[in-house]
Amino acid sequence: MMNHSQPTVRMKPDKQLDCNLSQDDGVWMMASSFIIFTMTAGFGLLESGRVSSKDEVNCMVKNVFDVIFGGEFLFDWNQKRAIEIEFVGLAYWMFGYGLTFGDSKHQLGRFFGFGDFFFDPERVSDDDSTDEKGISYSLFIFQMSFATTTSTIVSAGMSERIHLKSHCFISFAITLVHSIAGHWVWDQEGIFRTMGVVDSAGCSAVHLVGGISGLVATLYLTPRRNRFAKNGLRTVSDPTKAILGFLMIWWGWLAFNTSSNYAVTHGQWTEGMRSAVGTILASAGGGLILFRNIQIEKKQFSGVVTVVITRYATKKIQMDMLIDGMLASLVASTGGCLYFTPWQATLVGAIGSSLALAAYPVTEWLKIDDPVGVFPVHVVGSIWGMIAPAIFVYRRPMNFGPPECNFQTSDEANGLLYGGGFYLLFLQSFVIVVIATYSAICAFIILFIMHHSPIGLRVDKYQEELGADLIEHGLAGVNVMTYTLEKKLDTKTLSAVLMIIVRWRAKAKLGAMRRKQVHDSGLVTPKPTENVEMNVIHRRH
Amino acid sequence: MMNHSQPTVRMKPDKQLDCNLSQDDGVWMMASSFIIFTMTAGFGLLESGRVSSKDEVNCMVKNVFDVIFGGEFLFDWNQKRAIEIEFVGLAYWMFGYGLTFGDSKHQLGRFFGFGDFFFDPERVSDDDSTDEKGISYSLFIFQMSFATTTSTIVSAGMSERIHLKSHCFISFAITLVHSIAGHWVWDQEGIFRTMGVVDSAGCSAVHLVGGISGLVATLYLTPRRNRFAKNGLRTVSDPTKAILGFLMIWWGWLAFNTSSNYAVTHGQWTEGMRSAVGTILASAGGGLILFRNIQIEKKQFSGVVTVVITRYATKKIQMDMLIDGMLASLVASTGGCLYFTPWQATLVGAIGSSLALAAYPVTEWLKIDDPVGVFPVHVVGSIWGMIAPAIFVYRRPMNFGPPECNFQTSDEANGLLYGGGFYLLFLQSFVIVVIATYSAICAFIILFIMHHSPIGLRVDKYQEELGADLIEHGLAGVNVMTYTLEKKLDTKTLSAVLMIIVRWRAKAKLGAMRRKQVHDSGLVTPKPTENVEMNVIHRRH
Amino acid sequence: MMNHSQPTVRMKPDKQLDCNLSQDDGVWMMASSFIIFTMTAGFGLLESGRVSSKDEVNCMVKNVFDVIFGGEFLFDWNQKRAIEIEFVGLAYWMFGYGLTFGDSKHQLGRFFGFGDFFFDPERVSDDDSTDEKGISYSLFIFQMSFATTTSTIVSAGMSERIHLKSHCFISFAITLVHSIAGHWVWDQEGIFRTMGVVDSAGCSAVHLVGGISGLVATLYLTPRRNRFAKNGLRTVSDPTKAILGFLMIWWGWLAFNTSSNYAVTHGQWTEGMRSAVGTILASAGGGLILFRNIQIEKKQFSGVVTVVITRYATKKIQMDMLIDGMLASLVASTGGCLYFTPWQATLVGAIGSSLALAAYPVTEWLKIDDPVGVFPVHVVGSIWGMIAPAIFVYRRPMNFGPPECNFQTSDEANGLLYGGGFYLLFLQSFVIVVIATYSAICAFIILFIMHHSPIGLRVDKYQEELGADLIEHGLAGVNVMTYTLEKKLDTKTLSAVLMIIVRWRAKAKLGAMRRKQVHDSGLVTPKPTENVEMNVIHRRH
Repeated sequence: MMNHSQPTVRMKPDKQLDCNLSQDDGVWMMASSFIIFTMTAGFGLLESGRVSSKDEVNCMVKNVFDVIFGGEFLFDWNQKRAIEIEFVGLAYWMFGYGLTFGDSKHQLGRFFGFGDFFFDPERVSDDDSTDEKGISYSLFIFQMSFATTTSTIVSAGMSERIHLKSHCFISFAITLVHSIAGHWVWDQEGIFRTMGVVDSAGCSAVHLVGGISGLVATLYLTPRRNRFAKNGLRTVSDPTKAILGFLMIWWGWLAFNTSSNYAVTHGQWTEGMRSAVGTILASAGGGLILFRNIQIEKKQFSGVVTVVITRYATKKIQMDMLIDGMLASLVASTGGCLYFTPWQATLVGAIGSSLALAAYPVTEWLKIDDPVGVFPVHVVGSIWGMIAPAIFVYRRPMNFGPPECNFQTSDEANGLLYGGGFYLLFLQSFVIVVIATYSAICAFIILFIMHHSPIGLRVDKYQEELGADLIEHGLAGVNVMTYTLEKKLDTKTLSAVLMIIVRWRAKAKLGAMRRKQVHDSGLVTPKPTENVEMNVIHRRH
Repeated sequence: MMNHSQPTVRMKPDKQLDCNLSQDDGVWMMASSFIIFTMTAGFGLLESGRVSSKDEVNCMVKNVFDVIFGGEFLFDWNQKRAIEIEFVGLAYWMFGYGLTFGDSKHQLGRFFGFGDFFFDPERVSDDDSTDEKGISYSLFIFQMSFATTTSTIVSAGMSERIHLKSHCFISFAITLVHSIAGHWVWDQEGIFRTMGVVDSAGCSAVHLVGGISGLVATLYLTPRRNRFAKNGLRTVSDPTKAILGFLMIWWGWLAFNTSSNYAVTHGQWTEGMRSAVGTILASAGGGLILFRNIQIEKKQFSGVVTVVITRYATKKIQMDMLIDGMLASLVASTGGCLYFTPWQATLVGAIGSSLALAAYPVTEWLKIDDPVGVFPVHVVGSIWGMIAPAIFVYRRPMNFGPPECNFQTSDEANGLLYGGGFYLLFLQSFVIVVIATYSAICAFIILFIMHHSPIGLRVDKYQEELGADLIEHGLAGVNVMTYTLEKKLDTKTLSAVLMIIVRWRAKAKLGAMRRKQVHDSGLVTPKPTENVEMNVIHRRH
Repeated sequence: MMNHSQPTVRMKPDKQLDCNLSQDDGVWMMASSFIIFTMTAGFGLLESGRVSSKDEVNCMVKNVFDVIFGGEFLFDWNQKRAIEIEFVGLAYWMFGYGLTFGDSKHQLGRFFGFGDFFFDPERVSDDDSTDEKGISYSLFIFQMSFATTTSTIVSAGMSERIHLKSHCFISFAITLVHSIAGHWVWDQEGIFRTMGVVDSAGCSAVHLVGGISGLVATLYLTPRRNRFAKNGLRTVSDPTKAILGFLMIWWGWLAFNTSSNYAVTHGQWTEGMRSAVGTILASAGGGLILFRNIQIEKKQFSGVVTVVITRYATKKIQMDMLIDGMLASLVASTGGCLYFTPWQATLVGAIGSSLALAAYPVTEWLKIDDPVGVFPVHVVGSIWGMIAPAIFVYRRPMNFGPPECNFQTSDEANGLLYGGGFYLLFLQSFVIVVIATYSAICAFIILFIMHHSPIGLRVDKYQEELGADLIEHGLAGVNVMTYTLEKKLDTKTLSAVLMIIVRWRAKAKLGAMRRKQVHDSGLVTPKPTENVEMNVIHRRH
């Protein structure tokens, strides 16, 4: 058994910040960050397509709706996303980066960084170390994208019932929670990293933190009104939008995983390339599982799992299954993506996807309102994603580049399959438990404070009902009319819409009659209905 | 005349895999692959916008529709795309890469690679050749994107009438067909490459294979129901979506063409940069042609071509013309993009676009149901794209970098304009004929097998009519009602939608009456209009 | 005071074209250009979501609409964008690049380049200077993206009332206007660059030129019909689309600003990385300001500014505020992005955003029809963006790399805060005045010529009313019917739509009755349909 806190051989860590990073590394990180930034739009579309109420029942409703109400609950998800990123960006600039990568020479340096707040590499000195500054800048951008992802996951759990304002404060706070966890697994002095944890691309610091916090949030907020009502419909507003969002996340994920060792120089680019292949194949493995499930629905079922799946045999859930299953396989790949060989990645993805689908009915059964699959995708996915490396990781030696970049291997640091024994499995499980507990406590405190603050947490009944009814029961019309009595409704728009319908109708009838006439070669006089209706409709201009 | 199978001077091949590729090359290929992956979403959007039935007649239909049916034909194109990529990914991982780049030292090495199946560079050995591994990984990702493109083209030809399941198997099989053709033109031992063929970015191995296979598929499947019926409408569901898809494909294409020599080191990056400029200008040339055509419609026509164009003087076709013309110019640029100078690229694009537009009426006349322009864009475009290099290619010598990367030129290897004579023209034509025949035969065999397998090929009448009628005749309502008798319909949703309409109507009428009252200052009693109108609506069938 | 036209010390210019650029620089520029190209789609979506009429009143209208009319005004914004890029691309290829970076050894070399028209680096010579050619190619692509952005801004000002054809010619001409201004600030011999102007990423040459030209265009064209009519609605067609567009522009902007020194080698990549951080934080600062404003609406107001803001307290304007405020902060960052440290960028962005919002009511008050915020975003934003560097710029020395890449600093070249005195402030202001005047004159001349050409400028009354009424008054129905009398309407589609509605209603009624029967266990006879339906629908609450 090895010395746990200080492995006997000098192992290559996931994150290579020791040996000199330079231009190529920084530029690569930046190029990846460009791609990762497209995920922003992807997350927005994914949620917008899956929860937003406005497209739900009727496009017509939506258009008139937008005119009538200016309330914040009408901010759509993409707008929330844009605003959220502001807050995460500011939080990460002010404190986040410092908490993760700041000075850890102080007494509690294993637990959080302290320094580099209000990030500004120019502040330090003005000498020639431009390489160091450049790496700081690109690391900042790259790591900020992890912070925004964490916050996005939490916000997905709170969707459709949180105040925009408290949403912003929670985003700010969650960024700091994430940053501290990030220190543990990513910083060179971080407690878990010095123990040898494997978390290539934020499986624990991003997905576990986000997933657990999102789960706590969704529980604290209680379900959306009528979500579990007997006849509550769960339809999805725009599958095309959701899938487009997923595809954007998919391609962003490639960049995420690939650049997660921060380095391309000294042969480390090979790890990145391997990681890209692993990411693709993990999702391919995940998709395969899904495909089987999707097809299965058409046949007869037996057994518990299948029964559970048939419960979801509606269009919506198919789309959810597709997206969430593939996302879960991507989450599962984040833990050891720098290590997985192609077949391992495929297998890890397939298992991750299966576990996520198996977890689906649990949330439903427990009546947890999990609008966009935070539990199956991020909690289940990331737990498996942290366990998988303990099985598959095989650390290869590096014997090139400058001496400080060379590393020996030790069998003891490998996963189960490669002679590493149970050390890594124990360590990874320990990290899961600690980070999950930590996230849950932090999330609860944040929510509790917001709840009892003057801002409040949940939108008021009026707002939610207007929203939730639209989603859950398609009662848009009723509510619209109820509330328009309280608010000003632009009758001009309304009547215009109606005019179109009515006129079309008239026109169509006329056309039908004419065709009939041509056909019958007789019967010319229009019935009285025609004229009366036309009187009403043909407004005098 | 030169020795055909073995040019006398050592010429630089399109694909530089001989001299040492290293970090910079791999990272560049990977960065391009990130961009190329966005094409996935682009293709999905393009097809979704151009064929999908659901947005067609009425948004309202769509929303309720999604709730009612869970059938596979409702999977929208983006979902099909996501699933398809899984299968192509698995096929390419299992066999595709090995067929193209696997060991070609065996007897039939000119015809296909054998080895490297279930791609895993770690398997080979564990020595220090990380560069070699890295290049393998990035080449795999990069080449996989070519495979997905091929499959996408085929699936476009089969749209709206193929089973999701057989769709998946066909994607799998087409990937292998493509991989073998890829070996011929891309592998160092490939038969056509050793003859000196010019195919920079998959003009023959991607677009010709895909186009011909798609054409065979569309013929084998026979047209969609009512596609050529007398009054068949051919409207497009969502032009904005289609154009957005096109723009995504456009930017992905830039990366496609630019990285197609696999290398940036040893001065080869210049080729890539030239290729990017050529790609942009080819599409600019293509667009110019299109613009002229679009404008022409407004004037009086004479002559055969213009008459043919006027037949398409509807919105839909304009959009189709715009997209397909530009895509055709992009396809035309793939053959020689590494060689074309700016003016050549502009000219090649313009000609490609013109030819594609001229081919449009042919499909219509032959009653080939080609939903998203497979024939004009990919078949016509790629044939011209293979011929163009035979005219314009001028091979420049390379005299820098390590000796194994230096190449002399030979006039004999140039195109017609640069003293190469007819050798290249003959070779390129020969490649076209061989690959077209090969693709057609393979596609037929695959389709025949699927057709006679238990899975079947075409969706059943019930499914297609529901879909096809919606598209072709806007008869959605009728069919919806017919089938709802067989399936469960959620009346709650339905009635909610109707409630909105009815209430609005009531409201509007009330408003109109009140306004009238204010206007007339009298006359309060509502007329019997209400009843009369309702009578009108309930049409007798 | 320093010698104005020739600073005494050799300062590093923004754009590093002096010292040898090579592979890494070119490849980096190209990778950025890939990302920048995605902005194309972003701009299209942004405008489409904010102005397009077709989604406005009713989705149903739109779908039928597309079938009925084939007129050019139905080209949606994404299509216009695609076509526009063709023309800008051709203009830039033919003359633009030559005017900016062509030979400036001639007498008027300070004012415009001359040579390199019909851009073709292969033309020059065939020696081994592949690096030089490569840089030319990548510079061409990169700079072309600036040209398309300029043209896009102008076209936004002309939206919804310009002929597609004159739109194309104007795009062509504006590209040349931009190219000459580009020479002044970017070329090594350019008049303003030799004076030491700071314009990192086209603040003056892109945003000021575009903004002023767009403003002139919108004034010349006069407002859209009914835009300032008393009851004119100003609703937005599709906020989700607009925000998605904004997000795409956002990520593209990152690449824009980051690569604007053209170089990564010799330590210059650090500038790029700093620039990326600055860009993100500028928009974060901008968003913060916005957030305050958005929240403020909910409270009581006093004072002039707030009153002005309440005027915009509708959904639409909130979205506009969000997008335009953030875009303005991004524009503000373009001037000195290579120099701003993180806190400076945040501050510059926040001020830019505030100024833009303050400028909003001005356009409204002056009855300037500015459909997508050209004045507040691009004019106000770029003026502040040019002033900001005069305050914050601190030029750091470079003492590494080959001698020709080393630069000393001079306090005199710094901004106000770093001891530079008022020279830079004066110079930047002077550039603003000159470029604004120049752009205004050029734009007027172009518009005047087009106006009096046979093509004409504005769409005819028939077309615009059909469009504008739809947008401004929701009178779509009326117009549709008016015009359908003149054109052919497909009654089949119409009646199909109606049939759905009618049948659904019937179905729902039947279902409701059956449920009632089951409930009441009696009472079978259906009442006269009318009353039953109304009873059913008007649910008792």
